[in-house]
Amino acid sequence: MTAEISEQPDVLAGLVAARADIAAVARSIAARPPRFALLAARGSSDHAALYAKYLIEVLLGLPAGLVSPSSTTLYGANPDLADVLLVSVSQSGGSPDLVEVTEAARRRGALTVAVSNTPSSPLTGVAELAVDVRAGQEQAVAATKTYTATLLALYLLVDAVRGGEGQDVRDIGTLARRTLDESAQGVARAVDRYRFADRVITAGRGYSYATALEASLKLAETSYLAARAYSGADLLHGPVAAVDEETAVLAVTSAGKGGAAMHDVLDAVASRGADVLTVGSAAERMPAAVRIPVPETAEEVAPILEVLPVQRMALGLALARGGDPDNPRGLRKVTKTR
Amino acid sequence: MTAEISEQPDVLAGLVAARADIAAVARSIAARPPRFALLAARGSSDHAALYAKYLIEVLLGLPAGLVSPSSTTLYGANPDLADVLLVSVSQSGGSPDLVEVTEAARRRGALTVAVSNTPSSPLTGVAELAVDVRAGQEQAVAATKTYTATLLALYLLVDAVRGGEGQDVRDIGTLARRTLDESAQGVARAVDRYRFADRVITAGRGYSYATALEASLKLAETSYLAARAYSGADLLHGPVAAVDEETAVLAVTSAGKGGAAMHDVLDAVASRGADVLTVGSAAERMPAAVRIPVPETAEEVAPILEVLPVQRMALGLALARGGDPDNPRGLRKVTKTR
Repeated sequence: MTAEISEQPDVLAGLVAARADIAAVARSIAARPPRFALLAARGSSDHAALYAKYLIEVLLGLPAGLVSPSSTTLYGANPDLADVLLVSVSQSGGSPDLVEVTEAARRRGALTVAVSNTPSSPLTGVAELAVDVRAGQEQAVAATKTYTATLLALYLLVDAVRGGEGQDVRDIGTLARRTLDESAQGVARAVDRYRFADRVITAGRGYSYATALEASLKLAETSYLAARAYSGADLLHGPVAAVDEETAVLAVTSAGKGGAAMHDVLDAVASRGADVLTVGSAAERMPAAVRIPVPETAEEVAPILEVLPVQRMALGLALARGGDPDNPRGLRKVTKTR
Repeated sequence: MTAEISEQPDVLAGLVAARADIAAVARSIAARPPRFALLAARGSSDHAALYAKYLIEVLLGLPAGLVSPSSTTLYGANPDLADVLLVSVSQSGGSPDLVEVTEAARRRGALTVAVSNTPSSPLTGVAELAVDVRAGQEQAVAATKTYTATLLALYLLVDAVRGGEGQDVRDIGTLARRTLDESAQGVARAVDRYRFADRVITAGRGYSYATALEASLKLAETSYLAARAYSGADLLHGPVAAVDEETAVLAVTSAGKGGAAMHDVLDAVASRGADVLTVGSAAERMPAAVRIPVPETAEEVAPILEVLPVQRMALGLALARGGDPDNPRGLRKVTKTR
């Protein structure tokens, strides 16, 4: 996991260099312009799918939704999917439910795209179009480089559909390296401070909600922390009642509208005595016990960088707590749900 | 909260009796048949919206998605929503973000329906059509009767759009009363057993995933338990690593395909030593420390009943822990997020 986290700057730079392949897929999509987008995924890829949902809604102006695979796999829902773009996201491309959802959607008229780190996977086989996230083999059970590469692939795809040329991610490899270097001290402090934390909430808004979800999953699967992720707005609609002096809140706060909307959330949790850790390009502007800065980018690409120190923190906490982050208890690399 | 929980059988029976009003809204929808459905909500209503998403996908065969309000309110996403049905769900009808999302969607061509317990609310004012959930005034901060009434209203609406006459919920009031009566003993045991629980996970699949989410929120907002909800499938994709002997798992297991798909999940958490509580019409068929039975119904209406004992359990735990379930710390009845 340590090695795979460190590979990310190169992986991201390599994917940007291979942008032409993704642009070709984007041209096929633009040639059959969809009216509606659906995204299907599980686990970390589901967080990447949520990120893509925001991109599709905001940058492409298309309504979009996340697929509940069980509508298809358990209940056999059979919708008319003409004019629908289905994007299926899976690093392994091996989960039977996603393969079934993608096959069924294609049969019902959707334009199907597999976004996967495994070009020879069953998922890639059943989808009409495929985007290779080119992260190289990932051995640790906890996804790190496949997650950020998937985010970048999805960004490049959506950006190319709208006619963009990846301007805002041109230097993402370099920025990722800076992020890892410059966050090291903050991460070390966070690992010390949260070594004995038992109650952790993660929160973000807008694009960064995906980062909050991924942070929560990384902490759960490597450090066995029962972390709970919230969109900042949803947190205020009830769960904030469970926040107290014993709660650590990891708040993703990057420059932009999503980060700005976190001010209310931070006020609410701070007034309840929570211990706040901020991560992101606006982290240093926020009141917090520990702040982990990230270089500033266009808001819509911030999730690619924000998660890097969080991965290191999850790894550090896992080691500090005596765990084995490469092989978390009870998990395998490919989870086969139906 | 005690009184409002007990009112639910009458509220549900009353809503069934007023089915004609909902059928009229359904006729307006059927007259402009949508190609896609979007659902917008926050808090408990978001769980009702997720339930409706399954209903729309499975019973109407329409692709559906949950709206991320911040796409509109933070980023000004401006999609073409011709042929789209937007269902906005809010007991108070007062959250500014939902009003803004609904107004914007109507402007962009969506057929908008407000499902609310407040017919005079701003939300009802901006939507083209309105469904009144008729639960009467709710005073406790934690939504109980407005939640189940909203589920039933959404079921009646979707069922009427497909030409149904509410056959499967004809006796829902009576069944709700039986549920409350017959679950009392199991609820009392659960309150004893989880008095000192600190780590609670809730899980369900298919229609009952909504119940797992609502259970988690109810426990968080009344008993300050940092409960985390998972779809059974997502739990197996990572977070199961955080489950151990100190974890209580509230599993929603009703007769039908969603409940059957929980067997794998229960095996996984049991093998990790978790303390399992099952709730639902298949609860007694599952291995568990405590089982709370619920009368059997068609699977798609089970969520209306499953949540009733969970509400009583949240109330009981709140009282056992010295809380005030009517006025949880830091919450107000109407949360105004933007």
